[in-house]
Amino acid sequence: MALIERIVGRLADAGVGVGSGDDAAFFPAPGAELLFTTDAMVEGVDFRLQYCSGEDVGWKAIAINASDIAAMGGRPAQAVATLILPSSTPPSFVDGVVSGMRDAAQRWGIALVGGDLSEGREMALSIALLGVPFGEAAVLRSGARAGDAICVTGSLGGAAGGLAVLERGLKRGVQQARALTARQLRPVARVDEAACLVAAGAGAMIDLSDGLAVDLGHLTQSSAVGCRIDESAIPVHRALAWLAKELDGELDPLTVAIIGGEDFELLFTIEAERVDAARASLAELGTPVTRIGTAAESERLIGERKLEDWRKQGWEHLRNR
Amino acid sequence: MALIERIVGRLADAGVGVGSGDDAAFFPAPGAELLFTTDAMVEGVDFRLQYCSGEDVGWKAIAINASDIAAMGGRPAQAVATLILPSSTPPSFVDGVVSGMRDAAQRWGIALVGGDLSEGREMALSIALLGVPFGEAAVLRSGARAGDAICVTGSLGGAAGGLAVLERGLKRGVQQARALTARQLRPVARVDEAACLVAAGAGAMIDLSDGLAVDLGHLTQSSAVGCRIDESAIPVHRALAWLAKELDGELDPLTVAIIGGEDFELLFTIEAERVDAARASLAELGTPVTRIGTAAESERLIGERKLEDWRKQGWEHLRNR
Repeated sequence: MALIERIVGRLADAGVGVGSGDDAAFFPAPGAELLFTTDAMVEGVDFRLQYCSGEDVGWKAIAINASDIAAMGGRPAQAVATLILPSSTPPSFVDGVVSGMRDAAQRWGIALVGGDLSEGREMALSIALLGVPFGEAAVLRSGARAGDAICVTGSLGGAAGGLAVLERGLKRGVQQARALTARQLRPVARVDEAACLVAAGAGAMIDLSDGLAVDLGHLTQSSAVGCRIDESAIPVHRALAWLAKELDGELDPLTVAIIGGEDFELLFTIEAERVDAARASLAELGTPVTRIGTAAESERLIGERKLEDWRKQGWEHLRNR
Repeated sequence: MALIERIVGRLADAGVGVGSGDDAAFFPAPGAELLFTTDAMVEGVDFRLQYCSGEDVGWKAIAINASDIAAMGGRPAQAVATLILPSSTPPSFVDGVVSGMRDAAQRWGIALVGGDLSEGREMALSIALLGVPFGEAAVLRSGARAGDAICVTGSLGGAAGGLAVLERGLKRGVQQARALTARQLRPVARVDEAACLVAAGAGAMIDLSDGLAVDLGHLTQSSAVGCRIDESAIPVHRALAWLAKELDGELDPLTVAIIGGEDFELLFTIEAERVDAARASLAELGTPVTRIGTAAESERLIGERKLEDWRKQGWEHLRNR
């Protein structure tokens, strides 16, 4: 396809490293220990063309993979991309996808070393990304111990709120709407934050892709611990109050923050006496750290409610599909 | 999705290494220098459900990526998979895909360390594969020198012949038909052969995915050399004679061998005096090596005809789409 040359050309123009044009890319291993992940975005499932530009799709595909590497306490390094496109895709959209991938790759120091372009009836973009742990080993989901503090970076619920704005066609021009949709369309991988948290001694870590309730379930189950989360401590995205008002109270900001997905903040555990150091370290990056609770022996609670009950609720209903 | 657990469970049952169930897989780098490739199979474009089992799709997705690594003179190591499936996909088909991936991964010593499962309207399977060069460096397409012998492993045209059998609904029970369809549905990556060819001193290498005419074009252009190919030396797959008869001479076996794709044989160049050593080395694996021509200063010919003319012809028309 001529599109391949177009894409490779545009990446090369942008100074992004591309593969050798050979059967595979060839480069020195970025470290003695590797991280390896893959995540795809599928049209109609993970994004809709009505409200996503090509740039959005390309950016997010890279960001969600970089977030997985960050969640392991690592820095992203080399990536390959598989792009499946209907033959009717406008070249300008393809240019946008490449441009978004390029911008995100540059943001997190990722070399796009290869790719594959296929025709298909629906659009899909799959990224596979290599990374290297910042520390001697990766930070796993299983490293939490009872008594550890449970913390999150940034604020929660913004991406789900942004999806509600987009899906319901609310006025996107308003400042609060823009803040929310940016969280949905242009997520930020917490790579620099991960480096600081590794140095600060985070014991377990996961990125919040499926929402606090679900991902906290993954982390506590992997670690065989419980949790007690203080609802009032959860850092709810500020613009959700505006959204709740727009929707006549149909949506509860705290609930959105607990079950809304795709914030790509880091959820981590750390010995309680190290929380201040972690907070100070991330403050230099301008990223808040909030202690939201404590790892417990067995019971898993957010507020008075069991984690399982929150998890069952899920956030799918917020998507209005 | 419950399918994820099903797939991970089936891979684990089979003793194939799977990821940690964490945000990314974590493992020691397989070597100081890495190879990295990705290739996807899309329903309706790369395969059709009318004649492909799940096992076929899973096998081929791994094999075509392993072939890319082999073509760089490397051994495949770790892979991640992205599987996009319609929600209506029968579980038995999914089991087949996993089973085919598992069998191919075991065949070439690949650890499937992670994956991503998405819903989509059409089926697609994208693999990203890491590898390690057998030698100190990768064998590139650009290493051919004028005067080198040009050789291929195995025989050519079988996979395209198999596609014709499948697309035209010819009797698949006949021995020759089975031989051809196996070439199309269950390609074999020449990994062991690549190890021998690296040791024998192959200068340039590429796998035959797009067909001899096209891939020879890639290799000679990358190397800035010409080529003279002796048509009568090309190892045409034997069963193509049967197919030509079935189709009343509509199809010429030699033409199919020159422009048919997806044989995944290795096309390589080597100093003329080393051809015998390479042939002897691959004979131990039961794989023929055939010298089909010589790298020249500039002109690119297969028989009396320019490579460009063969390339323009392509093999798409053989696909009957």
